[in-house]
Amino acid sequence: MNNYNDIIEKMLNGELKPYQLDKMFGSKIATEIRRKFIEKKVGIEFKHICNYSIDEEMAMKKNIENMIGAIQIPLGFAGPLKINGEYAKGEFYIPLATTEGALVASVNRGCSIITKCGGATVRVIDDKMTRAPCLKTKSVVDAIKVRDWIKENFEKIKEVAESTTRHGKLIRIEPILIVGRNLYPRFVFKTGDAMGMNMVTIATEKACNFIEEELKKEGVFVKTVAVSGNACVDKKPSGMNLINGRGKSIVAEVFLTEKEVNKYLKTTSEAIAEVNRLKNYIGSAISNSMGFNAHYANIIGAIFLATGQDEAQIVEGSLGITMAEVEDNGLYFSVTLPDVPIGTVGGGTRVETQKECLEMLGCYGDNKALKFAEIVGGAVLAGELSLLGALAAGHLGKAHQELGR
Amino acid sequence: MNNYNDIIEKMLNGELKPYQLDKMFGSKIATEIRRKFIEKKVGIEFKHICNYSIDEEMAMKKNIENMIGAIQIPLGFAGPLKINGEYAKGEFYIPLATTEGALVASVNRGCSIITKCGGATVRVIDDKMTRAPCLKTKSVVDAIKVRDWIKENFEKIKEVAESTTRHGKLIRIEPILIVGRNLYPRFVFKTGDAMGMNMVTIATEKACNFIEEELKKEGVFVKTVAVSGNACVDKKPSGMNLINGRGKSIVAEVFLTEKEVNKYLKTTSEAIAEVNRLKNYIGSAISNSMGFNAHYANIIGAIFLATGQDEAQIVEGSLGITMAEVEDNGLYFSVTLPDVPIGTVGGGTRVETQKECLEMLGCYGDNKALKFAEIVGGAVLAGELSLLGALAAGHLGKAHQELGR
Amino acid sequence: MNNYNDIIEKMLNGELKPYQLDKMFGSKIATEIRRKFIEKKVGIEFKHICNYSIDEEMAMKKNIENMIGAIQIPLGFAGPLKINGEYAKGEFYIPLATTEGALVASVNRGCSIITKCGGATVRVIDDKMTRAPCLKTKSVVDAIKVRDWIKENFEKIKEVAESTTRHGKLIRIEPILIVGRNLYPRFVFKTGDAMGMNMVTIATEKACNFIEEELKKEGVFVKTVAVSGNACVDKKPSGMNLINGRGKSIVAEVFLTEKEVNKYLKTTSEAIAEVNRLKNYIGSAISNSMGFNAHYANIIGAIFLATGQDEAQIVEGSLGITMAEVEDNGLYFSVTLPDVPIGTVGGGTRVETQKECLEMLGCYGDNKALKFAEIVGGAVLAGELSLLGALAAGHLGKAHQELGR
Amino acid sequence: MNNYNDIIEKMLNGELKPYQLDKMFGSKIATEIRRKFIEKKVGIEFKHICNYSIDEEMAMKKNIENMIGAIQIPLGFAGPLKINGEYAKGEFYIPLATTEGALVASVNRGCSIITKCGGATVRVIDDKMTRAPCLKTKSVVDAIKVRDWIKENFEKIKEVAESTTRHGKLIRIEPILIVGRNLYPRFVFKTGDAMGMNMVTIATEKACNFIEEELKKEGVFVKTVAVSGNACVDKKPSGMNLINGRGKSIVAEVFLTEKEVNKYLKTTSEAIAEVNRLKNYIGSAISNSMGFNAHYANIIGAIFLATGQDEAQIVEGSLGITMAEVEDNGLYFSVTLPDVPIGTVGGGTRVETQKECLEMLGCYGDNKALKFAEIVGGAVLAGELSLLGALAAGHLGKAHQELGR
Repeated sequence: MNNYNDIIEKMLNGELKPYQLDKMFGSKIATEIRRKFIEKKVGIEFKHICNYSIDEEMAMKKNIENMIGAIQIPLGFAGPLKINGEYAKGEFYIPLATTEGALVASVNRGCSIITKCGGATVRVIDDKMTRAPCLKTKSVVDAIKVRDWIKENFEKIKEVAESTTRHGKLIRIEPILIVGRNLYPRFVFKTGDAMGMNMVTIATEKACNFIEEELKKEGVFVKTVAVSGNACVDKKPSGMNLINGRGKSIVAEVFLTEKEVNKYLKTTSEAIAEVNRLKNYIGSAISNSMGFNAHYANIIGAIFLATGQDEAQIVEGSLGITMAEVEDNGLYFSVTLPDVPIGTVGGGTRVETQKECLEMLGCYGDNKALKFAEIVGGAVLAGELSLLGALAAGHLGKAHQELGR
Repeated sequence: MNNYNDIIEKMLNGELKPYQLDKMFGSKIATEIRRKFIEKKVGIEFKHICNYSIDEEMAMKKNIENMIGAIQIPLGFAGPLKINGEYAKGEFYIPLATTEGALVASVNRGCSIITKCGGATVRVIDDKMTRAPCLKTKSVVDAIKVRDWIKENFEKIKEVAESTTRHGKLIRIEPILIVGRNLYPRFVFKTGDAMGMNMVTIATEKACNFIEEELKKEGVFVKTVAVSGNACVDKKPSGMNLINGRGKSIVAEVFLTEKEVNKYLKTTSEAIAEVNRLKNYIGSAISNSMGFNAHYANIIGAIFLATGQDEAQIVEGSLGITMAEVEDNGLYFSVTLPDVPIGTVGGGTRVETQKECLEMLGCYGDNKALKFAEIVGGAVLAGELSLLGALAAGHLGKAHQELGR
Repeated sequence: MNNYNDIIEKMLNGELKPYQLDKMFGSKIATEIRRKFIEKKVGIEFKHICNYSIDEEMAMKKNIENMIGAIQIPLGFAGPLKINGEYAKGEFYIPLATTEGALVASVNRGCSIITKCGGATVRVIDDKMTRAPCLKTKSVVDAIKVRDWIKENFEKIKEVAESTTRHGKLIRIEPILIVGRNLYPRFVFKTGDAMGMNMVTIATEKACNFIEEELKKEGVFVKTVAVSGNACVDKKPSGMNLINGRGKSIVAEVFLTEKEVNKYLKTTSEAIAEVNRLKNYIGSAISNSMGFNAHYANIIGAIFLATGQDEAQIVEGSLGITMAEVEDNGLYFSVTLPDVPIGTVGGGTRVETQKECLEMLGCYGDNKALKFAEIVGGAVLAGELSLLGALAAGHLGKAHQELGR
Repeated sequence: MNNYNDIIEKMLNGELKPYQLDKMFGSKIATEIRRKFIEKKVGIEFKHICNYSIDEEMAMKKNIENMIGAIQIPLGFAGPLKINGEYAKGEFYIPLATTEGALVASVNRGCSIITKCGGATVRVIDDKMTRAPCLKTKSVVDAIKVRDWIKENFEKIKEVAESTTRHGKLIRIEPILIVGRNLYPRFVFKTGDAMGMNMVTIATEKACNFIEEELKKEGVFVKTVAVSGNACVDKKPSGMNLINGRGKSIVAEVFLTEKEVNKYLKTTSEAIAEVNRLKNYIGSAISNSMGFNAHYANIIGAIFLATGQDEAQIVEGSLGITMAEVEDNGLYFSVTLPDVPIGTVGGGTRVETQKECLEMLGCYGDNKALKFAEIVGGAVLAGELSLLGALAAGHLGKAHQELGR
């Protein structure tokens, strides 16, 4: 086998750039050469990042640049978890990719309890993807004109925006925020089974050009300062998304009788409700947190990685509110996640191992996104119930100590 | 090779639980059996999650339960990036694991520009790990007693807390929040090169027991409602961490002359500063966001996955403020990340591929965490500069379109 | 004159309650007796709270209970301020009631500068009053049914709600937030020239009863937990109102040439822009503040008191974003106040002195609320420009020292 | 009596400025002339703002400029309210200045119930006034030097700061926030019985000059961009103050037996606890509010006006968390107000009517601020209990309807 020493020599000399290799050698070999180049440069020998089965050509086309290999993340499962959804009905085994010891065990415990107690009721209460550019005008007087023009010409803008995409549908532009002389119109799309971020970026950019040009004709200056004006809000925690939602907005709930709480969680409804109040409400409130929950991000994170979702959007999945209310005869327990951007096609879902994890849920491909969202909601419910139960029963630290992490 | 059909039969019958297999067969075989079990249950055949080189025994001990394989995430690199840190000095190749097309290319562009312009100045301005339990008393009068007792007996509490750990040092308990009759004392630790979350949980739990017992002697009732009272704040976005910091608090900055901005970023300092103001300040402000930046989470996410950090803490890394200020002769550009929980030992850093990524940075093992933090800061600076530059130059949508994602 | 000793004796004995006096003696005398009662009880002699010219009967009917007199707040004015509004056109003298020394002088300086520079352009970008009850159902499944029912039956709900009021118009119910099994539908009204809080409370309560009853017929249990579910959001700072607005949403702006900045503010555009960035954006961001401004609350507060607005809603008026952008030849300066609940009829506007202050602006009574809102926006612009200019010129502390406060 | 027509003529001609009159005629007459000037200018006749008993000379020295009279705000009282404080012990009559009908009645009801149930336990858990300037340096490297210098030279800075004030004591500088190359050191003072805002501004400004000069000697450039860098945080809602407190941080609590709840509030503990959870926690959480309470601002506002506090700081008093927890035999109810800036000397407390209101509480003058803070806490507890009770009993709208407002 060629060791590509001469090529690497040229790279070290600066004659060749790492990204130029793919066209010359194809991505498989280019990846190998880049890896060897880094080995030379840094003085180490890679024995693991070279072990992978994903197809470099595909990955390089859609998911990565300057590829040198792949990392591996341990994959476990939790379940079966019974879901009573609108789209997901039945029992599911949840794939979880994580390196945080005790997490899979904890979610698994929650799944087991929920399933024994009749399953999780889950609903997707909203579904959309958003992009909010920043448009600058000369004065608030013009900003209002632009806002009104956008409202009046929604159908035209919709046509322009949708001309860039097969799947994206612009359903409204709302709110149209005005700050001084600037506008932040929030473009709200349906994106089918794709998470849709790039689709809506391209569509919004085209719409902005259209708005600029049309208003120029009417003598109003408008400039697109940035196709994302941060009111989207993508990959940053925000009141905007907590309130108005983004991606899939999901509620999952379960009722447990007091007996079930006692038996399976080794505690009482009131103890769980108290932990929830003092930790998830008051503790979060006094810390000015947007996460009125115990650890949504843990479960969201492990599912996102397993199924090829965008890791940076774990940020958004961390928002939300857990409820634990004592009822006459037991516990009402729910999670509300307003901001879970996910897809079952495109992006990282194409990567072979991630695709398999989606298939494990019967959720790869078209017409699966809402089903997948319901399963995600159910899994978060399981993880949250398990942790709050453990805290109420007083054995969190012990769990970590025993599972050794 | 045994196909373990009888074992799987027992699992399907419920006679055997998935987690019981490890003791019977060792984790390698147990993982295989569980995988086959899922295949049977769900009716699919896994061809990719079974391809991995990580050691199951080690993973099962520390990082995962119910293991069935591993996922692969494409790994690319950006760099070289010149860092002028206190600990990191020189040029680095940044490993980035992601499935978001265009991200590695974007960070790479930023690295190239920064390196040409003299490198990134980076400093870790604070370093700590925190846990804030919720303690309940009978009245605010008692809550004040407990607070005062904690302040007066800090040295004793420190001794108790540190008795549980070799590396953790309790450096202060602050703030000690009081809400009604409840206390949320924030235990602040140094955790060496480990991210340290579990270490501080165990130490804090022991300290809470001590506080409960000692105050009981003085006739004051104190109950630990939860070892984490959400004022920590772990894996949730919060004003607490934005203001007071958590993990590594990092600032990275670079100065570019106007010529460099024109040449490398194809735009002007003022255009970048304007995008930064209207997007990262005003857009984020009017959306009630805690991320006054363009996409910290993207870079944080890709490095966290590559190097075995906790994926759920990407949430915390999304907080922070980007500055872009026009100077006489160019652009002052900086990123401030108050909340980056990372480690170079323990947790996911032990996983073989992740360990190699840390080694690629010369950052695996002891006495490397601060160096690693500085590199992370520099990489975020690169990603942020590149994206804001692209927005200012008006070609973001186009980039996504061409890189096809 | 009767000294009412026997009455007071009965009050001291508990035979008479303070609030019973009005029916017996009329409010004028009742007020006097209550004052004497307090004098006895507390052992002081009031010499000032008894000096007032407002009519007790009217005040007791609408604005106060258990009246014992009135407080006086010094009233100054700033101006003239030139406003180029849609409703307010011309020069205005702004009444300001405050005890904070230097405030009137500061606003006055701002008015003078703005007027010399052509006046403030002001627009009301939105106008509404909101109430969001909390409705509880049995499950998220029912919560969705209720949401959908509300959307489908908007016209009926509107009719019911509007049956309680002559001036209030229900224009939409949005957003309808769902958390777990609970709904928080935000009822959005036009309330004419009244601030309208009570009007919309009564209308919303009736609408809730209607929703409860109608859905009961369809077999869906709905309970109004509270007519205000805190998503209104009344008298509390909130992302909801920052983003979606409440009361009058106002933008005011002014352009100053560099010469004007130099001459009148003794500083430069860039110095003001820098103070604005580092204080109002970065300082507020890192403090997790919702006020990206210097002191809106000061001006809002002084006008609210002078004109009989609700003092507790000063809280809402504190939200907003100040912009200061260097243009080729000067400074673009604006204030954006998304949440200013005000009225020109009803509430405290009826009190005689407050009515006179509104009259001073030509803003008492019907069809004046939008004009008044524009003047408020202009005054805030003046106060903000003056303070930022003073900070940029470095003489804030000095001003306070000299004006002695 | 002179009608000052000639003077007013000169004012109309622009020969005389309104503020010049005081030196010429004294403030009493100057106020009258200015009032007549406005009458002329605006074409109205003032009959009420001229009725006041406060001393113009004193007001013009400390509290107002361009005085033209005074406004009157109706003053009622609530009480007696039994307070079991550290400083306030006994029963108090709370002065409330407001124009919001039903507010006094509601607080009064709360006072009555609390008093019958043994009184409110109140504690001031923290007491301070803060100012956080913005300091700019050349690089984060220098910013760290400045931070370390400030920490090491605290005693010297303290001496300089305290040289400007008799009552202010600098107790710490914390946190010292760093964003990029800028610092926001939060100067924390004790200010005795004054609210102290101006005192600490002057002290902080002097300290900043000192820091600038001393570091210049060491070759480090530091510039005070603004003596207030918005991390104070003054008159704006903020996570900073919610978490770290400002002014007086107060907790007030009361225990009611179930019988008392039934009898006095016509509802149950659980009903109140439910309203509190669904409204004050979940409703506020999903609205991204910092006020986890029903209406602190109402009570804070009415007391602030009555007693001469700064009306703009009502904003800060709106922050906080209400607790309502069902106990075996009743209800634990508390309010936590982290941010209540008040004084019993200086500022508006000097105004005659306001002084009388403080005297009514036995709280005017020295060594009274903590006592006053406890009473404020108790009054907020009363108002909050009353409103939540009313909501739980379902008669809020009705109350407003009957009290007619």
